[in-house]
Amino acid sequence: MWLRTSCEMTFSITVPTPFILMLRLRSGAQQWVASEEYRLKPSVPVFEFTDNYGNLCQRLVAPPGDFAVYTSADVMTADQVDQLPGAPFVEIANLPDVVLSFLLPSRYCESDRFGQMATEITAGEQLGYDQVKAIEAWLHTTIEYQPGSSDVPVSAVEVNSRQWGVCRDLSHLGIALCRSLSIPARLVVGYLHGLVPMDLHAWFEAYIAGRWYTFDATQSDLRGGYVAIGYGRDAADVAIYNQFGPPVYPVAQLVNVEHLRR
Amino acid sequence: MWLRTSCEMTFSITVPTPFILMLRLRSGAQQWVASEEYRLKPSVPVFEFTDNYGNLCQRLVAPPGDFAVYTSADVMTADQVDQLPGAPFVEIANLPDVVLSFLLPSRYCESDRFGQMATEITAGEQLGYDQVKAIEAWLHTTIEYQPGSSDVPVSAVEVNSRQWGVCRDLSHLGIALCRSLSIPARLVVGYLHGLVPMDLHAWFEAYIAGRWYTFDATQSDLRGGYVAIGYGRDAADVAIYNQFGPPVYPVAQLVNVEHLRR
Amino acid sequence: MWLRTSCEMTFSITVPTPFILMLRLRSGAQQWVASEEYRLKPSVPVFEFTDNYGNLCQRLVAPPGDFAVYTSADVMTADQVDQLPGAPFVEIANLPDVVLSFLLPSRYCESDRFGQMATEITAGEQLGYDQVKAIEAWLHTTIEYQPGSSDVPVSAVEVNSRQWGVCRDLSHLGIALCRSLSIPARLVVGYLHGLVPMDLHAWFEAYIAGRWYTFDATQSDLRGGYVAIGYGRDAADVAIYNQFGPPVYPVAQLVNVEHLRR
Amino acid sequence: MWLRTSCEMTFSITVPTPFILMLRLRSGAQQWVASEEYRLKPSVPVFEFTDNYGNLCQRLVAPPGDFAVYTSADVMTADQVDQLPGAPFVEIANLPDVVLSFLLPSRYCESDRFGQMATEITAGEQLGYDQVKAIEAWLHTTIEYQPGSSDVPVSAVEVNSRQWGVCRDLSHLGIALCRSLSIPARLVVGYLHGLVPMDLHAWFEAYIAGRWYTFDATQSDLRGGYVAIGYGRDAADVAIYNQFGPPVYPVAQLVNVEHLRR
Repeated sequence: MWLRTSCEMTFSITVPTPFILMLRLRSGAQQWVASEEYRLKPSVPVFEFTDNYGNLCQRLVAPPGDFAVYTSADVMTADQVDQLPGAPFVEIANLPDVVLSFLLPSRYCESDRFGQMATEITAGEQLGYDQVKAIEAWLHTTIEYQPGSSDVPVSAVEVNSRQWGVCRDLSHLGIALCRSLSIPARLVVGYLHGLVPMDLHAWFEAYIAGRWYTFDATQSDLRGGYVAIGYGRDAADVAIYNQFGPPVYPVAQLVNVEHLRR
Repeated sequence: MWLRTSCEMTFSITVPTPFILMLRLRSGAQQWVASEEYRLKPSVPVFEFTDNYGNLCQRLVAPPGDFAVYTSADVMTADQVDQLPGAPFVEIANLPDVVLSFLLPSRYCESDRFGQMATEITAGEQLGYDQVKAIEAWLHTTIEYQPGSSDVPVSAVEVNSRQWGVCRDLSHLGIALCRSLSIPARLVVGYLHGLVPMDLHAWFEAYIAGRWYTFDATQSDLRGGYVAIGYGRDAADVAIYNQFGPPVYPVAQLVNVEHLRR
Repeated sequence: MWLRTSCEMTFSITVPTPFILMLRLRSGAQQWVASEEYRLKPSVPVFEFTDNYGNLCQRLVAPPGDFAVYTSADVMTADQVDQLPGAPFVEIANLPDVVLSFLLPSRYCESDRFGQMATEITAGEQLGYDQVKAIEAWLHTTIEYQPGSSDVPVSAVEVNSRQWGVCRDLSHLGIALCRSLSIPARLVVGYLHGLVPMDLHAWFEAYIAGRWYTFDATQSDLRGGYVAIGYGRDAADVAIYNQFGPPVYPVAQLVNVEHLRR
Repeated sequence: MWLRTSCEMTFSITVPTPFILMLRLRSGAQQWVASEEYRLKPSVPVFEFTDNYGNLCQRLVAPPGDFAVYTSADVMTADQVDQLPGAPFVEIANLPDVVLSFLLPSRYCESDRFGQMATEITAGEQLGYDQVKAIEAWLHTTIEYQPGSSDVPVSAVEVNSRQWGVCRDLSHLGIALCRSLSIPARLVVGYLHGLVPMDLHAWFEAYIAGRWYTFDATQSDLRGGYVAIGYGRDAADVAIYNQFGPPVYPVAQLVNVEHLRR
């Protein structure tokens, strides 16, 4: 399906503030960006670079006053997310080198602490896709999903302890559980068509049978309409914005995703 | 200055034809892409990847029939190209690792064959910027510039032998001369505001005093208005399109660059 | 100084166990490897790759039984670690792209939780080198250093809470404090000549005035004799060995560093 | 088989001369380096980096006087090179991104000029492995192989015109022919056990059926005993040494490969 995504954020800046933004969509195997727009107000010099995960990042220093970032894109993405029950686990010895770092614990996914719990959640499942599907179902029924966003990411251990979280938190726990079973898993931040209430979204992917599959514990059924902005090991790698110096939060944030007839 | 660039190419395809296109502008230190559009007609699956030089490349298979590619972008670029007469040569031992490959001979820049000639052209010049400026001036007065494009790139040796060439050919010779003096040099393909007749353009950059500087032997004076599409060692690395199988040429190509009031 | 380093580890394996080892020294700006040896007993197929941080990693599957890894190297390293009191902080806008990821929180360095504490520890210090030196001194006097190694890395928050740690733990806390001040910092794992008792070691580096400087809170004065094995954001990135499946620990580990007359 | 390789080169230097050496073996899918030695006489500071192709390169400035480089390694490599007659051609649309640059013409492999010739040489062959085998056989019978080395690489066009060449020249022509058939091909420089007379060697690899296969037109039958030093598009990428400034040639070069009983 063709979607038009947009995200507008406004910050109230008091001292010149360095930002690293990650709001430029990339075309890839999952989606094709037919057009995009990226406006800053006021206009400031921007330097764009590609990070270790292939995400396009924009560096800039926001001047004091209101600072607005507006991005929009027309994107083609799948109507239905690929699913493959029974798809087999990939032995570690056969994983591609580039996938290995998604097996390791990371800031918000302490996979080194979840071995036993993951084994219990996936007991009786066939190794691979079905294990991750069981983890997704367990998250869906066990951890209370709170739509909306939170300023400070919390880690898998913390989410598991408090038993509720935003989309990003559920994903962190899902990722930690997958990795503890030696299944590579990564966080995706982006848009989801039909999300209620509309906002930026986060979900996770697991590497099974030679490719990445999409999982999302916040939705009762996995449809399509996912548009990825960035990939990484967890929210520390995939921040829509990283800001340095005295903390600054968006005073306004507006996200929209609509069907596009082309 | 703000520019709106566009490029439309139409191919007449007889058998399914794999293409690698390089028509997506990137933001970087030199330019900021505020909006862009990338349309294919008919629409086909596209996979985008980043090559060794950071260029965004689009892989696709064009189906039989007319196949059109239309790209457009609103870009901020410098009004005036930076120039720094007297800027010093960087000793090889002090060059960053990533620049070293731009010292080596490449497909169309046989720098291993131009040592003596480059020494003669730059006799008496201060090492660094002034040498490259002398090479640019020599090219401008010696090699006849033929606007327009040619289907088959020719190499520096061939250009030097026939004494004329399109923008890409003059750049290849300029690059070969620079490298033979141990000055890293690379080809840039892109747009130039005010180019007559309007077309895609090619120029070259040399690494001096710790950064890349722009040179263009086809223009009598170096103004601004340059918009880069891709960088590489020569035209083998930076092809607007690489096509595989029986040769296919654009049956129509339309390039436009205009000032944009924003 | 010329050093001969060696590390021998023996594991007792019960089921075929995938390993990723990081025990091959690399030559770089800090050290030159004149010779090295890498023996496995029994000999098994090994695939070597370079990770995101440039570390050389060896993938293999250890068969049941005793499995021994022996590495040794003759390395030239500095007699004295470079120190530069007063060296200035680099504004974030001026940091090279490749350094930016060392500003972010990571698995064991929750820099997002240490802002106020870091400000207090470095109160009155000049921004840059002197701040990190104050952090190093604070760690040295505040956190009890326990030589030896621990099986499970603990994070900066945990170390700060329990007030003691092995070399790796002190480094994690040092790194978290630096990053919370917007100073890029990374973990180094390697050898240190004269370490008592001899063992593998870990220290940290901070990016100041355009380069990485060495810090080590476990030593009362910073001498030379450091040999790096690997670099990363924290112990999750730089593990001498990562092992998958049922946990396996070395039944024997022997580390040696001696002066070499050449 | 286990092999001990060694290479000793001595240069007579008159002015301080920057070098980039490529003499450090890497372990990988094809070989395992169990030990290695790298000595410079006199000893000078060396900085090692990894180039775009994963080769380890050593940068240094050689001082006036005799300058000697001695490297040695104990390496495990295959007894028999893998061969797979009938292995199928990979459609361009299915090639991994990282392989694509080995389809393009390069300095010494003008694949854009060999389309018709390659078609004739491989007439009647099954697409893929058998085509490359036909090219290898054609080279073996048509181009006179002159053992030894030459100072200046010549290109595929030149080799084809003069009908003789050293190992590197035959490889360049083989690579150009493969690429003109849309088969990715690359140059390998290294050692070959049993080469007569013993010297450094060059051969080529073609990407077929999802992996790289070895071809060598200088040998009447493909045995094993190959040890790779470096990979690249052609000799411009894979030079055992690149030297800048007034040309310097080895005054002595000694290469040895012997069986090792371990």
